[in-house]
Formats: sequence, C-alpha cells, structure tokens
Amino acid sequence: MNIAIAQSGGPTCAINASLVGVFRQALLTEEIDAVFGSINGIEGMISDELINLKSIIRTNEDMELLRQTPSTMLGSCRYKLPAYDTEPEIYVRILNTLTIHRIGVFLYIGGNDSMDTVVKLSKFLQDKGSDIRVIGVPKTIDNDLPITDHTPGFGSAVKYVAATVQEIIRDSSVYSIPSVTIVEIMGRHSGWLAASSCILRANGEEAPHLIYLPEASFSADRFIEDVRRQMAKHKAVVVAVSEGIAVEGTEPEEFQSGATDVFGHKYLSGVGKFLERLVAERIGCKVRSVELNVMQRCSSHLCAGTDIDEAERIGRHALRAALDGNSGKMMYFRRVSDMPYAVTIEMTDAANVANKEKKFPLKWIAPEQNQVTDAAISYFLPLVQGEVDIRMKNGMPVHFQRPLQMR
Amino acid sequence: MNIAIAQSGGPTCAINASLVGVFRQALLTEEIDAVFGSINGIEGMISDELINLKSIIRTNEDMELLRQTPSTMLGSCRYKLPAYDTEPEIYVRILNTLTIHRIGVFLYIGGNDSMDTVVKLSKFLQDKGSDIRVIGVPKTIDNDLPITDHTPGFGSAVKYVAATVQEIIRDSSVYSIPSVTIVEIMGRHSGWLAASSCILRANGEEAPHLIYLPEASFSADRFIEDVRRQMAKHKAVVVAVSEGIAVEGTEPEEFQSGATDVFGHKYLSGVGKFLERLVAERIGCKVRSVELNVMQRCSSHLCAGTDIDEAERIGRHALRAALDGNSGKMMYFRRVSDMPYAVTIEMTDAANVANKEKKFPLKWIAPEQNQVTDAAISYFLPLVQGEVDIRMKNGMPVHFQRPLQMR
Repeated sequence: MNIAIAQSGGPTCAINASLVGVFRQALLTEEIDAVFGSINGIEGMISDELINLKSIIRTNEDMELLRQTPSTMLGSCRYKLPAYDTEPEIYVRILNTLTIHRIGVFLYIGGNDSMDTVVKLSKFLQDKGSDIRVIGVPKTIDNDLPITDHTPGFGSAVKYVAATVQEIIRDSSVYSIPSVTIVEIMGRHSGWLAASSCILRANGEEAPHLIYLPEASFSADRFIEDVRRQMAKHKAVVVAVSEGIAVEGTEPEEFQSGATDVFGHKYLSGVGKFLERLVAERIGCKVRSVELNVMQRCSSHLCAGTDIDEAERIGRHALRAALDGNSGKMMYFRRVSDMPYAVTIEMTDAANVANKEKKFPLKWIAPEQNQVTDAAISYFLPLVQGEVDIRMKNGMPVHFQRPLQMR
Repeated sequence: MNIAIAQSGGPTCAINASLVGVFRQALLTEEIDAVFGSINGIEGMISDELINLKSIIRTNEDMELLRQTPSTMLGSCRYKLPAYDTEPEIYVRILNTLTIHRIGVFLYIGGNDSMDTVVKLSKFLQDKGSDIRVIGVPKTIDNDLPITDHTPGFGSAVKYVAATVQEIIRDSSVYSIPSVTIVEIMGRHSGWLAASSCILRANGEEAPHLIYLPEASFSADRFIEDVRRQMAKHKAVVVAVSEGIAVEGTEPEEFQSGATDVFGHKYLSGVGKFLERLVAERIGCKVRSVELNVMQRCSSHLCAGTDIDEAERIGRHALRAALDGNSGKMMYFRRVSDMPYAVTIEMTDAANVANKEKKFPLKWIAPEQNQVTDAAISYFLPLVQGEVDIRMKNGMPVHFQRPLQMR
C-alpha cells in the first residue's frame, strides 16, 4: 500500500514537522511502500501531481532540516472542494489519482477549511464502498479550531509574538517623550494570538498595557480613553491589537483591504495603521504602529520546541489512526494538566471542526474589554516552552530546499 | 576619578554590549571609582540625571543579561548639542555635572549625530583647559559611518534581515499562483542593510530576485519591467527595497510620512506600500509588502555573536583610549582580512565621522541598478557569524530590567 500527504492553508512553522511525523511513521510501517506528497494541497490529488517523498527526503538530516523549515514544503492551496452534487467529476479525478497510485491513506494537514475537505472526501469514498481512509491533521497559528486544546503552529507563533513584543517594548521606551506603540497581530476573527502577548507578565513585563481582541467590544472613544489612562502611568504605552477587531460605528472597509478569499474570509490588514491615525489625531503624541505580518507564521528560527515536537507526534498518530481503519477524523490534543504540562492525542469527527471557529474565551477577557486576565497565562505558557537547536550555515538558519521542479 | 557613559540615537542590539564593555573595563581599572550612566544621552549630562551603574549592574549575570537586551538601557535622545556660540549655558551645565561628580572621562555611544556632540564637547573642554576626555563609540544598524569598516549593531541587523527574508521566501512560495512580495528594509539614505540580503545566496537562495538601494537610480517604469522579467522566471518573486530609495518623477511625500527630526532626517516609511500599489495597478498580480520595521534594530534573540563581542570590545578599547589621554576621537574597526576574518580597533578624529554618511559602494551595485554583486557577500558574511546562547525563562528571552525609577 502507498500513502499520500498534502498540506493546505496558510503557512506555519510546524506544518513540515507534521509531514516529518507522518513520513517517519511510514518508514517504520512495513505494509507501506511509497509515500507521496501531493503538490499544492488537494489540487495535486485532482491534477495527479504527486512527488515520491522518499526520493527527496533521503536522510535523517533531511528530516531535521525539514522540521526547522517554515511554510509548506509541498506547497499549499486555498481550493475549496465543491459539494459532490455540483461537481462530481472532481471527486472522480481524486479517486483516479488514489487508485492509479494504490493509495490507501490520504492525510491532510490544514485548518478548518481543510477539515471540510476531509469530511467531504471521506464521505464520498465511504459511499463508493472504498476503504481508502482520510485523516485530518490540524495546523494554524490562529488556534481557532474547536475540540483541540490548541493547534500545531500556534505555540511557535506565540513564542515569536511574545519575544518580538518584548523587544518592541525595549525599543519603544528609550526616549524621554511620551509615546504610544501599537502592535498589530494576526488571528483573523479570533484573538488567541494577540491575547497570548499577556505571557510577558510571567517574565516581569507590564506591557502590553492594553490588549484588544475581536471577541471583546471595541469603540474608538473608549480606546482613546484607555490610552490616555495608560499614558498617565507609563511613558511608553504599548498596545497589542488583533487584526480582526470590529470598530463600533466604523465600516470595516475604513481600515481593511476588504478583499475576500474563496472561503469568504476577509484579508485583514490595517487596523494598526487605523489606530495609529486615531491616536495621532485625538491625542497628538508620538505614535507608531508595527505589523508583525507574515513573520508571525514563518519565524522558524524562534520556533517552540514543544510545538515542533507535538506537530511531529500528531502526524505520527494520524497515520496510525488511519492504519487502524479510521476515516473522516481529525486528530487533536486533549490537555491533561497545565503543570506539569501533559497532553494526549485523540481523534474526533472532522465534521466537528470543519468550517467552525473557536473564539478566545470571554472568561479570560477583563471586564474593561481591554486586557487579558492572568488566568490565561497558564493556558499559554506551556505551549512556548523549549527551543529547537537550529542548524546554521554561514551564520544563517539552513532550510530544506525543495527540488527544482517544485519551485 | 569617576567616568560617565551615555547612549544616543536609534536603538540596536549591540549598544548595551558596548556599555558592558566600558563597565567591565572600568571594573578592572583601579583608578576608576564610580561609573555613572547619563539618562537619555547627553540630556542627562545637561540636567544632571546620572545613575550609579555599580548599584544596578551587580553581578556577572547582570552583565550577560544586559548583553542580550536590545535598545539602550540608559535611554536615548535625539538632542543636537547647539554650537557653543549660540547657547554657551548648555556647555556650562554639562561642565558642572562633570565637575560635581569628579568625572574625568565621558564616553558617548552613538551614530554620526552623536559624534558631532563628541567633537563639540571635547573642543569646549580643551578650550577651557580641562583634561576631561570625551570619546565616541560607534553604533548604528544603518552602517553609514565613514572610516570604520562597519558599525556595532549592523551585524545583528543583517542576521535578522537575512534570516527573516529567507523565511518570507519560504512563506511566499507556497501557492500555485504567481506573486510578488516586497520587503521594506531600514537604512535611511544608505542601502547597506537592504543590500546585505544578498548573503542568502551563500546558502543557495536565489531570492531576493531584485534589490533596490538609495545609491542606485530607480524609476517606477524600470521597476515594473524588472518585476515582469523576474515573474517570467520565478513563480514567487521577492524584492528587497531600502526605505530611502528616491523614485524618479515622484515627490517623496507620495510615499513617505515626510516628518523631519531635529537633525533634518526624514522619518522614512511607506516605500514598500508604494511599490505594492504600483505592482497591483500595473501588473495586477497577487502582491504583498512587508515592513521589517523596528524588529530590524531590536531582535536580540537572533543577534550575531561576532557583533555583540565586537561591540563589547570596542567599548573596552574606548575607555582605555580615554585613559591614555585621548579626546575628541571615535573608535573604529579596521578590517585586516575577510577570510579568516580579522579586525583591529583604531581611533580617528570624531570630526571625520560627525554628520557624515558612508554610502553603499557603487562598485557593488549591478549595472542594471537592481541587484547587488557577489563581491559584496564576502564583506557582509563575517559580520553575521556566531550565535549568542540566549538566556531564556518561561520559553522567552530574559531582558535586563531597568530599575523602576528609570522606566
């Protein structure tokens, strides 16, 4: 039997580690011959663009490099699998690819959109009487998948955000004049990543002095009041804001690009600049906004060891679950305890996750809607532990280089 | 005898290491009693706001933490010392501070503006018949100081830029549709830092496919042509652009904030967004711009070991030079060889550096004005070598925390 793997959605630091997990588990499994990588997510299954992974990942060193390489080695897609009723021929083409290459297991590493693909494809195969199994492996820096305690990729993003916000705090507090620094953090409609900047308190930082999340209510007037109040106490005020906050009385178009992807997601950007202008106009002090941008999802040089190890483990478990006969499932983490930190890996119907979002809990948002409570710290802290000893060459991290035909 | 140190200008990852260098050298010097830190650069000397550094840097561990803490522990300023003729009372106040605290040596860590202060203050003291010595220690991520081979702080900024651009390359190349990613890099009017992204070639990267510098000529039409030509060869085109490029036929105000600091510098920002809009309008493909922003100057978690060690060494040498009776000088690096890399530390009249900028050499710019030649790689590469073993707590880097009264 052969197996196939694909990666989908936005890049993270941990997707390749999950790929390595599946690959390593496959090497240990006698019944598996070829391990195929599908180019650009499910698109490669439709167009029969597969690559034999054993021919490009040859050594343990290759696997170690892949573990420390961000983004998706196999490429990605934002392609939404249509309903079977509307475009059955797409399903037939995928089945052809699976059949021609004797693929018995298809593993899909992705977010809630990819789990939609897992649901649809596994149901189609089941209805056909096929015993080909489809299992989803979660990933996203947004941490917005239901059921799972957290998502692979999130811990590394938190570590990058915390370390970088801490450095921005140092940077912003050097001059004698008062200033406001606004840090815009990713997360689409959920505030998990912006909220995680609260963990700096565990290391004695007072900033970010204000944290704004999509799950809380937000008004420009209250924001300006909040900033003024913090300026009375701190010379350099640092604000963390999630890209997805909705400003009361403001059309999103005023600060968002407004473009919509095929899943109906808005490409969010610009709330930092919007708040910067607001402070400049209403308070008139020195103000700067910093967008952490794609670095939040690809800064593998500062990935969290726990995150990378867990991403590999959940990939291994996914293959084992498929070989045990499961299909249409997503693997997930169940947290057993915060301290000492322990998780188990379980599985759930992918339908419980597909197209759903898990919001940041209201119980961890301060009553003033402008801060995260200390209770959240013990949730976040275990996820950023551990460092990966990054292989360097010429003073720079080494990345696994894809074969030329894939670039 | 006592000594005083101050830090000035924009933050870097290495300014505190130079402070540690001076401090450690002072501890070894029997004739030195107190080591004062002047709060917010020369401003602390004018207003007599000094802090006894031995009371806050108590252990070797404190010094190690300070070495890995970005920005300026003593605060900073952009204050320009007026000419003696116009405001002699300022000089009298500085002399008072020096005299009251029995300060025999004043060390100023800063860029070309700070060297202007070194020139003016040392000349004033000499004219007064005082034997108080003033020595400048260079720093800037812009690497734009004349005489010195490079500036402390630059190597760490290069390491951050290279590692981050490499991660952005991985991030940008996952989808099957063609795209252009524009990375905006600091440097004011000099292209050193943007140019340094060429070192990724030493690790096998082809990107950045285009590099634009203030020292080269730039036109929007040629830029669009360049991008089209690269898109014919690469699916994901990555462009590095220096914030200070001048676009022919375009008023700087069209893409720069235009605000001017007291030294007459423009606060540059926005050329990335400007080029992003240009690509969107003229080519219409997927395009994104990423501003590396203040992270370029404060990402100590990825500082270059060579840079931090050199910054400490040049601080030590500065104090020794002052104790040898020198004044009005700036310490600098003279490169003896690229491979094996070796530098010596020398001194020059601060007047040779004050208010002057060193541009990126034209000989290292490709004839097409859109790339850096391989010859530059051997200049840059030694500067990013080595890693600092960063002390971590709770999964995050530990920063030296300033005493409460300084925050």
